[in-house]
Amino acid sequence: MAPRANGIGVQVEDTKICVVMVGLPARGKSFIAQKAQRYLQWLSIDAQTFNVGNYRRTEAPHPSADFFDLGNAEGEKRRRAAAEAAMHDMLDWFRKGGVIGILDATNSTKERRKWVLDTCTKEGIEVLFVESKCDDESMIMANIRDVKLTSPDYAGQDPEQAAQDFHARIKNYEKVYKSLDEDGDENDYTYLKIMDVGSQVIINRIRDYLQSRVVYYLMNLHIRPRSVWLSRHGESLYNLDGRIGGDADLSTRGHQYAQKLPELVRDSVGEDRPLTVWTSTLKRTISTARFLPENYNQLQWKALDELDAGVCDGMTYQEIKDVYPEDFVQRDEDKYNYRYRGGESYRDVVIRLEPIIMELERSEDIIIVTHQAILRCIYAYFMKKDQSASPWMNVPLHTLIKLTPRAYGTEEQRFSADIPAVSTWRGKGSTAKHENPTAGASI
Amino acid sequence: MAPRANGIGVQVEDTKICVVMVGLPARGKSFIAQKAQRYLQWLSIDAQTFNVGNYRRTEAPHPSADFFDLGNAEGEKRRRAAAEAAMHDMLDWFRKGGVIGILDATNSTKERRKWVLDTCTKEGIEVLFVESKCDDESMIMANIRDVKLTSPDYAGQDPEQAAQDFHARIKNYEKVYKSLDEDGDENDYTYLKIMDVGSQVIINRIRDYLQSRVVYYLMNLHIRPRSVWLSRHGESLYNLDGRIGGDADLSTRGHQYAQKLPELVRDSVGEDRPLTVWTSTLKRTISTARFLPENYNQLQWKALDELDAGVCDGMTYQEIKDVYPEDFVQRDEDKYNYRYRGGESYRDVVIRLEPIIMELERSEDIIIVTHQAILRCIYAYFMKKDQSASPWMNVPLHTLIKLTPRAYGTEEQRFSADIPAVSTWRGKGSTAKHENPTAGASI
Repeated sequence: MAPRANGIGVQVEDTKICVVMVGLPARGKSFIAQKAQRYLQWLSIDAQTFNVGNYRRTEAPHPSADFFDLGNAEGEKRRRAAAEAAMHDMLDWFRKGGVIGILDATNSTKERRKWVLDTCTKEGIEVLFVESKCDDESMIMANIRDVKLTSPDYAGQDPEQAAQDFHARIKNYEKVYKSLDEDGDENDYTYLKIMDVGSQVIINRIRDYLQSRVVYYLMNLHIRPRSVWLSRHGESLYNLDGRIGGDADLSTRGHQYAQKLPELVRDSVGEDRPLTVWTSTLKRTISTARFLPENYNQLQWKALDELDAGVCDGMTYQEIKDVYPEDFVQRDEDKYNYRYRGGESYRDVVIRLEPIIMELERSEDIIIVTHQAILRCIYAYFMKKDQSASPWMNVPLHTLIKLTPRAYGTEEQRFSADIPAVSTWRGKGSTAKHENPTAGASI
Repeated sequence: MAPRANGIGVQVEDTKICVVMVGLPARGKSFIAQKAQRYLQWLSIDAQTFNVGNYRRTEAPHPSADFFDLGNAEGEKRRRAAAEAAMHDMLDWFRKGGVIGILDATNSTKERRKWVLDTCTKEGIEVLFVESKCDDESMIMANIRDVKLTSPDYAGQDPEQAAQDFHARIKNYEKVYKSLDEDGDENDYTYLKIMDVGSQVIINRIRDYLQSRVVYYLMNLHIRPRSVWLSRHGESLYNLDGRIGGDADLSTRGHQYAQKLPELVRDSVGEDRPLTVWTSTLKRTISTARFLPENYNQLQWKALDELDAGVCDGMTYQEIKDVYPEDFVQRDEDKYNYRYRGGESYRDVVIRLEPIIMELERSEDIIIVTHQAILRCIYAYFMKKDQSASPWMNVPLHTLIKLTPRAYGTEEQRFSADIPAVSTWRGKGSTAKHENPTAGASI
């Protein structure tokens, strides 16, 4: 059977890419690396980050700035050994079927980059260099404060002294640092140069579609503070009946939630700034969002419609079990991959949500009013949830979730409307109309 | 009612962008401009190109190279007047609701670019400069031969002499040409610089999502020769019954078509190069493609599945008219926008096809085996068909269509398998199972 197009619509089996980070310390390289890995994994593309610093730390746990001085032969030897150990593990991982490996290190000299390129090329791995170049002192300091001082290198040290030491470390790298293609002799390399957190990007010699998608994702990242609010629609008449799909109206309690939503949002925003509202094209989400302030732009997305249950649309789980007993069992066995007859799987939903995620990455404050399966997929992206678990997560009705991306990971807050609603969560094998979620199902 | 997300998923009402082409003659500016316009119009985004050369020609129909000499005051005056006339018409068009205007001219000096920027900014129009920079002499000559010598400027002239004159014209532009941000004093501008037809691109200060989508599209264009083959699946059992949707098997004649398809493809390729095969996830397209050579990569796309007829899936048109008489009439009144209950409209299909188009632009030789409505939408993109007409086009079964993009427009060839099949075309108001298409319905 022919392979299915994955999330970014490309047959990845034949392509292996090593994304090689380049840049001075405190330029957000690890931030970019972890975002890229999360995005690719969400799309079912096998991606892994290899952080050279972690390899180096096993030998030199708390090195001072001197360690990073080019003149320090011992330091240079150990740093080289760390790079080689990371590369060794990465190549092993590629041989076992890895698709996109991310080499997270400064890779600040041409020699080092050439070594990485030659080593990968020999193994049939494409190399995409991604440089983050930033000369904005305040941004660098913010990065040092937010990220580096919590690094294991400085565990237990005085913050002020640590910051000074880190600055000295950067100076040592600056002595040898060459920006990608600065002298024009790396112009055959495939690279993305991100200047000042995306204010300018240079894209050189992108060779295939998968590279272009990684590049497009990375060029859309920004670090301006923002949040994403997620809510399911208010309780619907179908929810009351335990029916899936359809385009039902809200129940009385669902309407109460719609009325309360503006207050929940206001309280969670913290200051007076307008959000953008995204709903699906189905009545129950549009209706739920209808009392939000008029100065909030509203947009309906077909891509936010509920997972299409195909021939099972409008049925209860008991009816599905009665009419399609084999499908009922198959779905429980692999809920992420099971595709309803004439409908969709969770995997299909992730594919159609990819442009939504891309626009979310570019955007600032957005509130999304959508459906259970859709919310699970979006939540899994931000919170890095496993695909086998995410279709079983409990996402309660009448609850507003606020997600705030930070340098490492995403912060979550919940705001309950305190309006009762049925549970639409369902345990494996169950055909109950409404049942209480088990403890492990909570997201 | 909240606006619907359009094809590229963004609410464009508030955004107006002037795409300002920059570059020496024969660098493919008009090619880029017409591609961008076609893509945006296909996505229902109101886009229009304003070609300054056309304005200049009304006053100076066949100017010699001297006309473009900076020292020629009369020439400069007229060229300035042409730019002003184009700008005037473009602003008028924006005031009437235009969304993306493309100013197609060399705009080769900083002064001219500043004038365009200031004029647009005053009207609340964002400016995106798009420069095509190319020093590859053979590419420039190919462009002169293919495009410029057929330009109205040289109508009726000796080709050799015309080429020489055109070269002299370029020299005159080179005297004053400044690449975007060459001196670093245009670094606040939003721009895309395309070097040597995409081998390197620089993207500077992209400000919003619509800009980023235009940029992403333009950076994916290439000019390597290639073709796209389109075929519907072979005749299906549902086709025989006059039923829509479903996931039926092929009829006997449909299987015959599948067997003949490799031969049709081979004859149309012309030389021995493997294609990539894209099908939908439905049986009838996979089955149709199953005899294609094994060295052709095959890929299944959910995005290529037939338009979802929702509650009408599996019905004949007579049944639809009986059960949903109002819907039947509404669909015929506006077939492009009508969305089946619980299903899709043609407009929805275009939205989900957008990533397909993007990948098609990046790719080389692809054969797509898909469904009537999907093929109509893809065909409309390449052949610039009107949205109100495209849902009524006749796309015969058992026919291979080969499309070859050229500098201006797309060439089409047809290869009939000579295997009879029912007609699935339907005229407005008709409920016939099979009827002969009217002459105007042929694509």
